Parts: sequence; C-alpha cells; structure tokens
Amino acid sequence: MMQPPAIALGLRLRVLAEGPGASAAQVITPAPVGAADDLEALVAFASECDAVTFDHEHVPPAGLRAMAEVTSVQPGADALVHAQDKIVMRERLTALGVPCPRWARVGDRAAVEAFAAGAGWPVVLKTPRGGYDGKGVLVLDSAGDPAWSTAEAWLADWAGRGGLLAEEHVAFTRELAALVVRSPSGQAAAWPVVETVQRGGVCHEVTAPAPGLDEELGAHLTDVALRVAGGLGVTGVLAVEVFEVLRDGRPTVLVNELAMRPHNSGHWTIDGAETSQFENHLRAVLDLPLGSTRARAPWTVMVNVLGPREIEARHEDLYRSYLHVMAHDPGVKVHLYGKEQRPGRKLGHVTVHGDDLESVRARARHAAAFIAGEIDE
Amino acid sequence: MMQPPAIALGLRLRVLAEGPGASAAQVITPAPVGAADDLEALVAFASECDAVTFDHEHVPPAGLRAMAEVTSVQPGADALVHAQDKIVMRERLTALGVPCPRWARVGDRAAVEAFAAGAGWPVVLKTPRGGYDGKGVLVLDSAGDPAWSTAEAWLADWAGRGGLLAEEHVAFTRELAALVVRSPSGQAAAWPVVETVQRGGVCHEVTAPAPGLDEELGAHLTDVALRVAGGLGVTGVLAVEVFEVLRDGRPTVLVNELAMRPHNSGHWTIDGAETSQFENHLRAVLDLPLGSTRARAPWTVMVNVLGPREIEARHEDLYRSYLHVMAHDPGVKVHLYGKEQRPGRKLGHVTVHGDDLESVRARARHAAAFIAGEIDE
Repeated sequence: MMQPPAIALGLRLRVLAEGPGASAAQVITPAPVGAADDLEALVAFASECDAVTFDHEHVPPAGLRAMAEVTSVQPGADALVHAQDKIVMRERLTALGVPCPRWARVGDRAAVEAFAAGAGWPVVLKTPRGGYDGKGVLVLDSAGDPAWSTAEAWLADWAGRGGLLAEEHVAFTRELAALVVRSPSGQAAAWPVVETVQRGGVCHEVTAPAPGLDEELGAHLTDVALRVAGGLGVTGVLAVEVFEVLRDGRPTVLVNELAMRPHNSGHWTIDGAETSQFENHLRAVLDLPLGSTRARAPWTVMVNVLGPREIEARHEDLYRSYLHVMAHDPGVKVHLYGKEQRPGRKLGHVTVHGDDLESVRARARHAAAFIAGEIDE
Repeated sequence: MMQPPAIALGLRLRVLAEGPGASAAQVITPAPVGAADDLEALVAFASECDAVTFDHEHVPPAGLRAMAEVTSVQPGADALVHAQDKIVMRERLTALGVPCPRWARVGDRAAVEAFAAGAGWPVVLKTPRGGYDGKGVLVLDSAGDPAWSTAEAWLADWAGRGGLLAEEHVAFTRELAALVVRSPSGQAAAWPVVETVQRGGVCHEVTAPAPGLDEELGAHLTDVALRVAGGLGVTGVLAVEVFEVLRDGRPTVLVNELAMRPHNSGHWTIDGAETSQFENHLRAVLDLPLGSTRARAPWTVMVNVLGPREIEARHEDLYRSYLHVMAHDPGVKVHLYGKEQRPGRKLGHVTVHGDDLESVRARARHAAAFIAGEIDE
C-alpha cells in the first residue's frame, strides 16, 4: 500500500520480500528475497537504497544497526525496540509519564500472583517479543485458571530472557487509536483519533473520527501520541492503541500497544484523509514535508476482510464476491492484498465514507462480510 | 496512473512499453518493450493478458484486430478508429446528430477556399491522423495567410490518403469536457462536467465542476457524451472535449475532440472523485461494475506541470522544487510521471480541492508554476 503514493510522488521503491509471492513483491520490483534476520541480505539490500523502512517490526536490532551503517534506516533501532519489546516499551512510557495499565515484569508464578494481589484478577500475561494480532497474550482469570499450564511454560521459556510482562486487565469502555507521523527533522502531524473494534485480538473495524469522543480527551490522546513519537525518536507512522476507561466517571485513556509503521488502524486514511498514512510514512522516512492529515468526509469506516472459516468452500470466490459488492454499492472502496486465503487472515479491507455514520458503517460492514463469505446477500 | 487502482483491486497489470525507461515501465512489471505497430510484439503481449487496453490511441487497426483474435481488446478497433481518424469521427458524429463545428473533407486549396466561403475565415486545417496536443493543426486566417505554404505541403502529403479535415474556427466562450466510462456490457457512468483551459494546444488547467455551468447544458453535454460512447461502441473512459458557444444568446456546445482512454481532463478524479478515471477504466475494460463518479469536494482544480523553457537551468530541480510546494501547502497533491524533462512536456500535475474556488485555483496554479520553475516564490 506504499506503492500507490510512491508512484504519485515519483519515488522508486524496492522491497526485501520474505518470499517471491509476498504481497509487496507482487507490485514492487526489484523484490529480492531475504529473511528479516539474514544480516547479509539486509546489508546488500540496504546498500542499494537511499532510505530503508519497514512494514513490520520484526527486523532484529543487529540487522537494523548493520543497515544503518550503509544507509538511512527509519525508524532506527533505538526507536523500534519499543515496538519490538513490550517490557522496554512499558519502562520507557512510564518514564515519560504516559498513562499505562498497571504492569510488572514477572519471572515466575509467585511474581504473577503478587502482581495480581495489587492489580487484581484477571491478569494479562504477554511475551515481550514476537507477539502479533493476539498471539503471545494470555489472560489468567484467577490463581486456579486452567491456562496456568501455558503460563508456566511461557515463564520457563522466558526465564533466562528477562521474564514476561504482566498487565492489569483493563475494563475499557472502548478502544481508540491515535495515528501520528514524525520525520527525522522533527516535523510531526496527527490524523483524527479513531475508534477501533477488535475481533479475537485482531483489528476488525475502524471509525474515523471516534464517535462522541470528548474533545479534551481527543486532544490529550493526540498530545500523548506526539509525545511518545518525540520521546522515543520515532520516524514514520506511529500508531498508539489505547483503552478508553472511566476514572471517577470521566473518560481517560491508557496506552495498550505501539506500532511503528503504517498500521491497520490507519487504513481508512487511504480513502478518507487528504494524505494517507502510507504517503506520509514515505514522506517522513525521506524527511520530506508532511501532507495534510485532515479527514475528507464527516465519517469514514474501514472494515477488514478476514479469511473465511471454510476456505475450501470459498476458494476463488473472493474476487467473484467483490464484484457483487461493487455492483451493490458503487461507493465502496475495495482493497485486496493479493494474499493466499487462510481462516482469519487479513485479506483486504473496505472503506466507506459519508455524512451519516449509521449508514456508512452498515454499508462497510455489509461489504466486508459479503466479500468474506460471512453473509450471502 | 492505472497501477495504483490495480494494486487496490488486486489486478495484475503488464505493459507493452515503447522503451525501457517509459513512465509505465517504471512502475509496472513485466514490461516487455515493443512498438505500437509491431504486430508480432502486440500479439505475443496480448496472448499473456485477460484483456488489453491503451494509454494512447496510436495502435494501428491491424494491430488491434490481430490482438482481438487472442484476447479481449477494449476499446476495440471499430470504436478506436473514431479517436484515431478525425474525418471518420466527424462523419460518425454528424450521422449521430451530435453537434459539431462546421467541417469538410478537403483535398486541395480550392476545396479549403470553398469551405471558407461558407464557414468564413479563419479555417482550421487538421491532419486526420497522428495529431496530438496541438500538433497536426493549422489555423489559416485568410487566403493570403503565410501558413498556406505548410497547408499546401500537408494537402499534397495527404492527397492520396483521403485529404485533410477543414473546420470552422469556433469563437468559443470556454472549453468544457465531459468524461464518461462505459463497459462492454453497456453499463455507463459520467463524472461532473469540467472546464478546461488550454495553453498552446495543450491542456493546462481543469476545474471540476465547470463553474457556473448552465444545469440544462451540463445534462445535455453528459447526454451527448453517453450517446457518443454508446453509438461508437466505446469501452473504458471516453473524454468528449467541447467548445461552449453562444447561439442566440444561449450557451450550447460543439464537440471538438474525442479521447478513448483516461484523459488529462480527468486527472482531477484521482484526488477529487470517489472513483478515479483510472480505476473505472480498469473496471470497465474488465467488465466489472463501475464505481461512483461523484466529486469528493465542492471544487477540485488540477494544473499540469509542464517542462520549463530552460531545462538546463532547472535540471534536477523538479524534485527539489516540489519539496517547497509540499512544505508551503500540505493540502496540495503532487503527481510526477517520471519523465525526462523537455520544454513544454507534461511532467506531472497537481490537484487541490476545497470549498472556495478562488483559493483552490490560486493554490493549484501556484504549486504547478513553482514546480515548473515559472515562479520563484
């Protein structure tokens, strides 16, 4: 999704692809194949680029530093570590005074139970690294939860690597995300705060702007996100996912996750904002002036198209079903990623914009569900 | 510019490029090189495609027919001939009852003077084929015009090939364009009618919608364009460029030119319409349902970035100057085509949208002029 704005801006992309069939490799050439932890491949690739950036956060720090010796790497290893390691992230955010759920580093079962004694049950246990879309996250309801067998295995596995992250289970009213972008020279811009809805730990629906958001809270959240971007030295797009919670009857936010790349919560900007997160990410990592982040419509709703549960029954029907969506609603923008279908996999998304939130949301949900084969009409 | 919507829709493009450095070949692969009149290259290329379409109209009918034997060619030879041969176009439009300037096929000087006796001077003389952006067009002010030496050479050159096209010189109030799109199964859609401003025979500025356009005239023009698309069997985008003229004090239109492809008068749709001409062209030639053609803002203005007169002084400054534009006005959308600079060549365009026409137009003009090096601040 960075290729369309790159084409418009006259920028030439190349991609280091995890395989010849990778989504990005389908639309960007050259696309040499190389693993994110293959130092030699990373450096050979980086030496051909004016700047290197990422569409995931899984390049190890050693690889980032090796590339940084031959070219500009944005964001750099010192920033990216906060999106790679959840304990490092919590430590740094806490030091910056950014509101977080209560958290602790835990090395064994006793430490988890001690944390629960203060923060209460349930406790959320997370692996510091390698988690993604709900993976590496475990919720323990009590000291007697059957999930403890998994928890104990994780604790043993991470014992020599700094332990796990324990967090309070936040009783949130909803989830919000603040999307900002920052360039190496420090220019920054923020898109409107959005409401996100997850399904099984995976982002499913995004509404821009977040309906009924308290104005002061929105400004506070944007300020938090910009402070995180600056404080951590982030370059490119930063998504700050937060819980909206009530404290003494007033809404406030606690930071849940950080993503340092164009993020699912910002896909609505392709069709819904004056400058998309992908265009501004490119501008930022090249230290070009940033584009306007204003919304282009009163409401924009993005819904992910997830791989259907029964792939066999749906195989090759994805393109056929989107024809029906196109015919049914000419205002729906369909985006497909060229990925092989797997149950629950993000295969694409749809975006609808307009003046009336209920209608916009209904149209987007219907289109996504129809393409995914969840409904027949 | 077809590649961005192709990426979103999951369509795989390939391009037959006139050279390895062609704009399209920079962003589409595979991009085999082949001339538009190389029958063998055309057929080899077409045999790898589900459908073939064009970004210019210069593929000879024999090539179109040869490709049509191996795949779907949209638009087909029978439609495209009307955009390739101006005399064929005039004959057909006249037969369809479409309002045109007075015209005649002329084989010699006497025929031109006879036409002028009826239609009056000046006379516009056009080569039926091969003209583009003002080339192949001659204006004769009188029987004594010095341009007659060129006119006589053209007449001699085309004597054995059906002669030239003579047209009345239309005293127009302004130029308008109607952009429509039609699919093989007959579905059609129309974008708002725009006002176009030419500079030296080259499209320079487009305002959408055409300011102050008489509502009835707009509907009439859209109807004419859809009638032409249907009558000529056009598939994909059709641009109908017209003169707005006063007849008995009331505005009406005369068709000037047809373009059967995404056209400069429709570049505003990339940032200004719910579905761009490039996306709907792809949808149409593949016979997919068409997208909404509604404008996304009250006003959208597109201005071309033309190659500066003194290339030497500006070389390599194009990208540097667009940085200033980005910094000066974050709402400007810049599109560069990756072309080598030549004086007067279309190197890119800028688009600005908003609520106030005067401001939108001023911003777009300033951005384009600055990038082209026509102004310094």
